[in-house]
Amino acid sequence: MIYPKIPLAQTVVQLCKAKNIKHIIISPGSRNAPLTIGFTNDRFFTCYSIVDERCAAFFAIGIAQQLGEPTAVVCTSGSALLNYYPAVAEAFYSNIPLLVLSADRPKHLIGIGDGQTINQKHVFEKHILYSANLKLDLKDEKNIPPAQELPIMKNLENKLERFLGLQKDIQIYNEEELNVAINYAIHKKGPVHVNVPFDEPLYETEAALSIAPKLVDIQRKLIQLDDYTIMECLDTWVSAQKKMILVGSNAPNAIEQKWLDELDKDDSVIVLTETTSNINHPNFFSSIDQIIAPLTEKEQKELQPDLLLTFGGLIVSKKIKALLRKFQAKAHWHIDEISANDTFFCLSNHLEISPNTFFEIFLPRITHYAKSNYKEHWTSVKKHRLEKHAQYLNELPFSDFKVFSALVKSLPANSILQAGNSSTIRYLQLFKLNKTIQVFCNRGTSGIDGSTSTAIGCAAINTKPTIFITGDLSFFYDSNALWNSHIPSNFKIIVINNGGGGIFRILPGHKNTDNFDEFFETKHELTAEHLCSMYGFDYLKALNENELSDHLKSFYKKSKQPRLLEIFTPRVFNDEVLLDYFNFIK
Amino acid sequence: MIYPKIPLAQTVVQLCKAKNIKHIIISPGSRNAPLTIGFTNDRFFTCYSIVDERCAAFFAIGIAQQLGEPTAVVCTSGSALLNYYPAVAEAFYSNIPLLVLSADRPKHLIGIGDGQTINQKHVFEKHILYSANLKLDLKDEKNIPPAQELPIMKNLENKLERFLGLQKDIQIYNEEELNVAINYAIHKKGPVHVNVPFDEPLYETEAALSIAPKLVDIQRKLIQLDDYTIMECLDTWVSAQKKMILVGSNAPNAIEQKWLDELDKDDSVIVLTETTSNINHPNFFSSIDQIIAPLTEKEQKELQPDLLLTFGGLIVSKKIKALLRKFQAKAHWHIDEISANDTFFCLSNHLEISPNTFFEIFLPRITHYAKSNYKEHWTSVKKHRLEKHAQYLNELPFSDFKVFSALVKSLPANSILQAGNSSTIRYLQLFKLNKTIQVFCNRGTSGIDGSTSTAIGCAAINTKPTIFITGDLSFFYDSNALWNSHIPSNFKIIVINNGGGGIFRILPGHKNTDNFDEFFETKHELTAEHLCSMYGFDYLKALNENELSDHLKSFYKKSKQPRLLEIFTPRVFNDEVLLDYFNFIK
Repeated sequence: MIYPKIPLAQTVVQLCKAKNIKHIIISPGSRNAPLTIGFTNDRFFTCYSIVDERCAAFFAIGIAQQLGEPTAVVCTSGSALLNYYPAVAEAFYSNIPLLVLSADRPKHLIGIGDGQTINQKHVFEKHILYSANLKLDLKDEKNIPPAQELPIMKNLENKLERFLGLQKDIQIYNEEELNVAINYAIHKKGPVHVNVPFDEPLYETEAALSIAPKLVDIQRKLIQLDDYTIMECLDTWVSAQKKMILVGSNAPNAIEQKWLDELDKDDSVIVLTETTSNINHPNFFSSIDQIIAPLTEKEQKELQPDLLLTFGGLIVSKKIKALLRKFQAKAHWHIDEISANDTFFCLSNHLEISPNTFFEIFLPRITHYAKSNYKEHWTSVKKHRLEKHAQYLNELPFSDFKVFSALVKSLPANSILQAGNSSTIRYLQLFKLNKTIQVFCNRGTSGIDGSTSTAIGCAAINTKPTIFITGDLSFFYDSNALWNSHIPSNFKIIVINNGGGGIFRILPGHKNTDNFDEFFETKHELTAEHLCSMYGFDYLKALNENELSDHLKSFYKKSKQPRLLEIFTPRVFNDEVLLDYFNFIK
Repeated sequence: MIYPKIPLAQTVVQLCKAKNIKHIIISPGSRNAPLTIGFTNDRFFTCYSIVDERCAAFFAIGIAQQLGEPTAVVCTSGSALLNYYPAVAEAFYSNIPLLVLSADRPKHLIGIGDGQTINQKHVFEKHILYSANLKLDLKDEKNIPPAQELPIMKNLENKLERFLGLQKDIQIYNEEELNVAINYAIHKKGPVHVNVPFDEPLYETEAALSIAPKLVDIQRKLIQLDDYTIMECLDTWVSAQKKMILVGSNAPNAIEQKWLDELDKDDSVIVLTETTSNINHPNFFSSIDQIIAPLTEKEQKELQPDLLLTFGGLIVSKKIKALLRKFQAKAHWHIDEISANDTFFCLSNHLEISPNTFFEIFLPRITHYAKSNYKEHWTSVKKHRLEKHAQYLNELPFSDFKVFSALVKSLPANSILQAGNSSTIRYLQLFKLNKTIQVFCNRGTSGIDGSTSTAIGCAAINTKPTIFITGDLSFFYDSNALWNSHIPSNFKIIVINNGGGGIFRILPGHKNTDNFDEFFETKHELTAEHLCSMYGFDYLKALNENELSDHLKSFYKKSKQPRLLEIFTPRVFNDEVLLDYFNFIK
C-alpha cells in the first residue's frame, strides 16, 4: 500500500475509513495532495475527481442523500473552499451528512500575503454543525511552538521529550476533533468542516502507516416518548375533530404502509403529502395547491385543523404555508429526531423521535376515532378538482403546464426523479406521480445553483435510472455539473426551456416591459445542444406536442450515452395558463 | 420616474447614487425586486443582468478593478448570496471595492423553515471590511416590535408617536449603516456587505421618493510622513549598499516615470517588477524567476538585500518569496496607504502613504548614492539570462513555453491583458511585455474560479481592447462567464489547452500514473468550441506553431463578435521544457 507520509493525512484517511465514509469527491490542488494520495491509493474508497468545487459538493449531496451517510469532499487551500458554501448551506437545511475536508497552509503562512490563502477556520460558521480545526504535525524539535500557543501541551522539560509529548498531544487532539466532527455529521445529519493544515513536502509517501488513530463511536441514545407525553398526545388527538398531517421532503420507505393505512381509516384525519414526501396513498392529498389555491377565505377557514401534525423537511407549497399561518392550528406537533421548525408560528410540541417509531407507539394506542366529516368533505373537493383538472388539460395549448402533464405520465416505474428549483418542483406537485417513483429536490435552500450536480451524484450510485427535470435557468446555472466522468448512461435530463425564469412571470410584478424581460425573467436564447455535444450527451429537442410525444416513446430506453431532452415552450403565457388553471378547477 | 415603494429600497438606491456607484450587477430574484426596480429605472446607473452570482461578482471585480471605485452586486435571499463568496474573498485580498447588496426576508421568517432563507447576516465575516445589517421598514402601527428588540427606539408613549419615532430611528440607523459601509469600500478598498430585509409586497412602485437620505462623506486624512521617520529612512537608505525594490500587483500609471528614472540612477538599487506591477523600465528586472531560478544557494545569498522595499499587492513569484524568507533583508519597508503584509517575516516598517507620494517626498531628499556594484552585477546576470533565453527558444518544440513566447510578441500595443491563474501568469512573468500593455490578474486568492468573468467585466467598461489569456481548467471552471450579454466584440480569449492542469505536472509529485492523471492533472478532452457556438464567439484553433502564427496575424483585428483562440499543446512534456529552461539559462 501507498500512504501519504504526513501522519495527519494518514489520520484523516484512516478515520474516514473506520467511520465507513466510502465516497470521496476530490478537486484538484497541491495543498491537498497528502489527502488525495491517501484516499486514491486505498481501494476501500470510491474517489471522484471534479474540478469545480461548487459542483463537487452538490454531487456529494446527491450521493449522501441516497445513502443517508456522510460523503466527503476534499479541496485545496484558498477560495476553492468557498465554492463549497452553497452546497454546505443546502446540506445544513436539508439535513444531509456532508464532510468537508479542506487542506490549509500552516498557521505561520496565513495572513502574510501568501498565495491561495484565506481565513479557512470557521468559514462556514453560520451553516455548519461542527468545525474542527486540526493542528499541524510537528516535523522536528525546532518547530516546537511557544508553550502559550498550545494549551494542550504537557509540562515536559527536555526538548526532545517536549517534542514527542507535544506531537502526541497534537495527534490525540486531532483524532478527537475528527471523531467529534464525523459523529456530528452521522448523528445530527448535516455538514461538518474539518480544516487540515499541511506543510511541505506534500507529495512524499510511505509503505506503512505510522499512526493508528482511535475510533470513537457514539450510540445515538434511543429516545422514547414517556407515558405522560403519550397520554397528553392521545387526549389531544382523540378530541381533535380536524387533524391535518402535512409531510415535507422525506426519504422513500421511511414510513411503513400499515401506519399509512391506519391513518387512512380515521375520518378526522387528512394527510397532505408533498411530492418530495415520497408518501403515496390513494386517499391522501398529494396536490396541495390544487386543493387550496381556489379556496375563498371562508373555505380556507374550513380547512383550519385543530391539530396539525408535520414531519419531513421543508415545505414547498407557499399556499399551504400562508393558509396555516393565517388559520393556525390549536396545536402543532412536529415529529423529528433532531430538530423542529416553527414554520406556522404555532409549534406546540416537538416529538424527538422518528415518525415511523412515533406511529408505531402511538397509533395502536388510539381506541376510537373522533366523529368528523373533515376527510369526507375534502375528499369530495379533491374529486371535483381532479375532474376539472382533466377537463382543463383537454383544451390546453402547448405550455409548461401541458408539458409537465405529459412528462409525469411518461416517467418509467421504479425510477428516481430529481427535480430542479423552483418552477419544476412546483409544477410537479400539481400532478399525480406513479407511486414507485422516488422524488428528490434540493429544498434546503431551494437554490438553482446545484440541482444538476445533485441529480448526477444520485445517478452515479444508483442502479435505478435517474431522471432529472429542470428549468432552463437552473440548468444553465449548473452547466459545469456535466463536466463529470461518472455520469452513467442511464441518466436522463429533461430541460423545459421557456427562454427565461418563468417563475418570475408567475409572481406579481410588471410584466412585458424591457426591464422585466431583462432583469426579472432574464430572457435568453440559449439551448442545451452545445453542452450536450461538449459533454457527450445524446441531444433531443421538442418544439411542440407531437415532437414531445414522439420523443417520449423512446427517450427512457437504454442508450449508450446519457441523454438530454430539451422542450421549448412559449415564454409568455405560462403564467396565464397557471392562473386560469387555478380559477378553472374551482 | 418610477421608484420602489419601500422606503428602505429607495434609501439604498439613493445613497448608491449619492456615492457615485454607477455600475450595478443584478442577479434575478424576487426578494430583491425593490432594489432591481430602483436601480433599473434610474438612468444614472448602468445595470447588468447576470444569472450566476459567482460570475456576477467576479464581473463586478473586473469593473471595480478598472475604475478603482465600488461596483455593486445585487442578489435575492438564500444561497444566491453564498455564490458571491469566492469573489468577495478575492476583493478582500486584492483591495478591490465591492458593494454586496443582498435582499433578505424579514427577521420573523428566518430560521423557521421558510424557502430560500439562510443566515445572511455577517456571512462573510472572515473576509469583509464591514457588514451592515439594515432593519426592516415598519409598515404600520401593528408591526411595532417590543421595545427590547430595538435598543435604538425612543421612549415615546402614544402608539402612533412610537410608530413614527421608531420608523424615523430605523431610517436614521439604516442611512448611517449604509454610509459607513460604502465609505469603508471606498476608502479602505475592499468588499462590504449590506443585508437588506424586505417584506411583501415587493413589486409596488411610486412616482416620487418618500425619503431623502443623508449623505455622509469622509475625507481620507492625508497621512504625511513625519520628519523623524523620513530622517530615519534616509539613514537606512543611504547606508544600505544593497537595496531591492519588489513590486507586486499595482495599478497602471500609479508611479510617475520621473521617480522610476530616479531609482534607476542609483547603483545600489535593483527594482524587481512582477508582470502585474504595471511598471516598466528597461533597467529594471521584470522576469524575476528567470533571474533567480538557476541561482545556487551562494548566489542567492548575494542577492540578499540590506534593505527590501515593497509596494503593490501580492507577489506571484514563489521563488523570490522563498529566497527572501531564507535570506532576509535587515530591514523591510512596505509602502501602502492601508495595509502591510509581513510576507518575508522581517517587516520593519509600514509606511502608510501612497508609493508615489513616498517617492515624491523621499527621493528628492537623497543627497548621495551608496557605492555599490549590486545593480551592475545583477544587470550582467540579467543580460546573460536574456541571451540564453533567446537561444533556448530557438530550439524549442511546440509547447506551452513556446506558445507564451509567441503570444507575448503578438499582443497589440495599448491593450489590456487579463491573465488566468496560475500557470498563465507564471509563464507570462518569464517574457517581456510591450510596455503599453496593462496587466491584471486575480491574485488576491489566486483562484481559478472567476478569471474569465473578471476579464469580461474589464472589457465591458473599457474602450481599449481586452485580451484574456487562460489555461484550460481555469477557462472551463468559469464557463458561465460567457453567459453575459455585455461582452464587447473587441474582447478576445486565448485558451492554452494542454488537456489538464499543467501546473500539477510542474509541481513535485508522482507523474504519469493513472492516479496523477485523474486526481492531480485532471486530464480531459474538452474543447472550448461548443461554448463558442453556444455564446456567440468566433472560434479559432491552433494545433501547431504554423497554425498559431497564421491565426495571430489576424486574431486581434476588429471582429463582429468576440473571439476565442484555442491553442492545443501537448499535455506531457511542458514540465520538462520549463525545468530544462531554468537549467539552460544558468
